[in-house]
Amino acid sequence: MLNFDLYNPTQYVFGKGQTQKLTTLVPKEAKILLAYGGGSIFKNGVYDQVKAALDGFEVIEFGGIEPNPRFETLMKAVEIIRAEKITFVLAVGGGSVIDGVKFISGAVNYEGNPIEILKKKVLFTDVTKVIPFGTVLTLPATGSEMNSGAVVTIEATQEKLTLGGSALFPKFSICDPTVIASLPKRQIQNGVVDAFTHVMEQYLTYPHDALLQDRFAESILQTLIEIGPSVVENPSDYKLASNYMWCATMALNGLIQKGVPSDWVTHMIGHELTALYEIDHARTLAIIGPNLYRVLFETKKEKLAQYGERVWNITGNSVEDKAEKAIEKTVDFFHQMGMKTKLSENTTNYENTADFIVNRFDERGWKALGEKQNVTLEKVKAIVEMSY
Amino acid sequence: MLNFDLYNPTQYVFGKGQTQKLTTLVPKEAKILLAYGGGSIFKNGVYDQVKAALDGFEVIEFGGIEPNPRFETLMKAVEIIRAEKITFVLAVGGGSVIDGVKFISGAVNYEGNPIEILKKKVLFTDVTKVIPFGTVLTLPATGSEMNSGAVVTIEATQEKLTLGGSALFPKFSICDPTVIASLPKRQIQNGVVDAFTHVMEQYLTYPHDALLQDRFAESILQTLIEIGPSVVENPSDYKLASNYMWCATMALNGLIQKGVPSDWVTHMIGHELTALYEIDHARTLAIIGPNLYRVLFETKKEKLAQYGERVWNITGNSVEDKAEKAIEKTVDFFHQMGMKTKLSENTTNYENTADFIVNRFDERGWKALGEKQNVTLEKVKAIVEMSY
Repeated sequence: MLNFDLYNPTQYVFGKGQTQKLTTLVPKEAKILLAYGGGSIFKNGVYDQVKAALDGFEVIEFGGIEPNPRFETLMKAVEIIRAEKITFVLAVGGGSVIDGVKFISGAVNYEGNPIEILKKKVLFTDVTKVIPFGTVLTLPATGSEMNSGAVVTIEATQEKLTLGGSALFPKFSICDPTVIASLPKRQIQNGVVDAFTHVMEQYLTYPHDALLQDRFAESILQTLIEIGPSVVENPSDYKLASNYMWCATMALNGLIQKGVPSDWVTHMIGHELTALYEIDHARTLAIIGPNLYRVLFETKKEKLAQYGERVWNITGNSVEDKAEKAIEKTVDFFHQMGMKTKLSENTTNYENTADFIVNRFDERGWKALGEKQNVTLEKVKAIVEMSY
Repeated sequence: MLNFDLYNPTQYVFGKGQTQKLTTLVPKEAKILLAYGGGSIFKNGVYDQVKAALDGFEVIEFGGIEPNPRFETLMKAVEIIRAEKITFVLAVGGGSVIDGVKFISGAVNYEGNPIEILKKKVLFTDVTKVIPFGTVLTLPATGSEMNSGAVVTIEATQEKLTLGGSALFPKFSICDPTVIASLPKRQIQNGVVDAFTHVMEQYLTYPHDALLQDRFAESILQTLIEIGPSVVENPSDYKLASNYMWCATMALNGLIQKGVPSDWVTHMIGHELTALYEIDHARTLAIIGPNLYRVLFETKKEKLAQYGERVWNITGNSVEDKAEKAIEKTVDFFHQMGMKTKLSENTTNYENTADFIVNRFDERGWKALGEKQNVTLEKVKAIVEMSY
C-alpha cells in the first residue's frame, strides 16, 4: 500500500428534509451569494426550500453557471463578491455549479490574474485566503460535494482545466436523495456512468497490496450496477435514489484513491471531447473508457480479470478471457444506461479528433500518462481512433 | 437508508516513516504533553522517532496510562496540564492511551467535577473548550485514532463508561504499519478481533436498504479474515500489517455506521467482563458475540445468512441453515485468532456474572438494548450464562 494522507473536513448531511439544516450550517451573520445553474432549482422546489431555510440572511443570487462552467461566467460572480463584500457562497446545483463555486472561492482573493489558477494549476491550501462555501446537491455525479477538486472550461480557448487544494473542501454539503425524482432521465444516466468511471479510474490499474481499497471500489461498482438501470426508471424510489447519491459521493471523495495507483486517462481524453463537441461529460467517458482498456490490455488485463470475477461474477478459462468478457460487460452496462459508446453516434465531423487531442497533449508537455506512465501519445491516438 | 451526518476532520497520515511529519503537524509554539502507556514505545523505537520529530518543542512526558485507562490516572495528567499550561497533547500508543487523552482533552477546562463527564455522558462539541491533541498509533484495534469516542474505567467503582463528541476528534493521527512488527502476538490477535467485532456491531443487525454500507462492512470483514491469521505469524510483512492497520481504522471511524442501525450489545456486556475480571477487551467480545447471535437468532438470522453467503461463501438449504453455519464460522475464526470463547477459559469464580451484569444494567435504567431494542435483561442473562 502506498503512503497516504486522508483529510476530508466536509460536513456531509444526507437524507430526506435535510435542506432545512441550512439555517444552522451557514455561519451566523453571513452575507451569502446563492449560486446556481440553469434554473432547474425553481422547478424542483429546491430554491424554495433553500430560501425558506435562509430566511433572515442577506442573500444575493447569481444564476446561469453552465454545464462545464465557464471561466468567463465565473469571473462575473467574483466581481459581485468583491463589490458586495459577500462572506459565504452557497452552491445549489450539480457538479458544474459546485466546481464553479470552488473556482470563485479561490479567485476572489487571488493576487494576480485568476486565469493563472487554471493555467498554472494553483493549489489552494490556506483556508483564510478563500471564500468559504457550502453546497446543496441537486444532481449526484461528480462527487464535487465532498472533495476539493474542480474542472473549469476557458471558453476563449476551448480548454477544460482543473484546480484544487485542501482549502477548497465545501464546509458542508446537503444531499437529499428526493431531488433525484425530478431529474431528467439523461442526467441520471450520466450521473451513474460518471460515478462508475470515477471508481474505474482509481481501481482499474494493476493488482496491488491495498486489499481493502479494492473491495471498497468493487462495492461501489456492484451497487451502481445493481441500482443504476432501475433508478433511471424509478427515480422517486428512495432506496434506489439514496444508494445512487451516496455511491456518487463515495466514488470521488478521496477515500478509495488512498494508497493506490490511479489512471485518469479516460477523463483526460474525455475532457477534450466535451471541450470540442459539447458531448456530456459522462458520455465521453463511456466512449473512451472501454477503448482505453482495449489498447492498454496487456497492462490492465490482470486487474480487468479481477474486476470481471468479483464485480460481474465472470468465469473464464484464462486471465485474457475473463478480461475481455469484463470489457464487454462494461460496454453492455453503458448501453443499458443509455450511453452511445461511439464518437460517431455523438457528433459529426470527428475525423481529426485524434490528431487534435494528441497535438493539444503535446503542447501541454504530456508525453506519458496513466498509472504506469505508459500511455504514450501514440496510444492516446489509438484509443481515440478506436472510439470513432 | 437512515438520515445521517458524516463529519470527520482528523488528518489521517498513513505509511512508512510518517512519524517524522510530526514536526509540521504539531502546532508551532505548542507546549506538549507527550502521553503514553506502559513503556513499549521505549523498546520499539517509536519514542525515539517521536522525540526526534519534536526537537525544538517544549515537551513534558506523562507515562503509565494503563490498558482500560483509569479516570484516577488520567486526572493526574489533567492536573499537570493545568499547572504547566500545556497547549497540545500527543497520545503515543494504542486505543487506551488515545481514549485516555480524549478524556484528558475534555476534562482540563471542564467546569465541574470531571467524573461527571463519564457519569452524565457529557458531549463535547466546542473545539475551543478542549485541549487539542494528535496521536501516533502503536497498536491498531480500536479505531480511536480516527473517531471522537472513548471508554474510560472508574477504578473506584469498577465501571467502564463512554465519552465523546465532535470536538474530540484527533487533529491528526500518524499510522505507520511497521510498528506492528514489534507487537506481542496476543495484542495483534486482540486487535484483529476487536476490529472485526466493531464491524459486526454495525452490520449484523437486519437487512435494510443501505446497500453500499453493507458491502463496505463486508469488505472489512473479508479483509480481516484474509490477513488476520497471517499477520499474527508475520507481523513484519508490510502487506499484511498495512491492511490490518487500515481495516482497524475503517472499522470504527464512523463511515460504515452512517445510515444504518447498529447493535453494540456485545460491547456493553463485554465492558462489564473487563471491569470485573480484567479480561482483554477483544477477548470479551469473542466470548459474548457468538452467543448474542444465538440468543437473538430469530431477530438476526436474515442478516446472519447474508453475512454467511457474502463473507464466508456459505451455501445452505435455508436462511436458518446458513445463519447457523455463519455463527460457527465466526467462532472458528475467533479460535484461529487465539481467542478462548468461554468465560470459564478466561477466569475463575464466574458463577454470578450474569446476575451481577443484569443488576448493573438495571441500576443504570437499561431495560432494552440492541438495534431493535429487544435485548431485554432476561436475554442479557441468557447470553452471559450461555458464555460460561
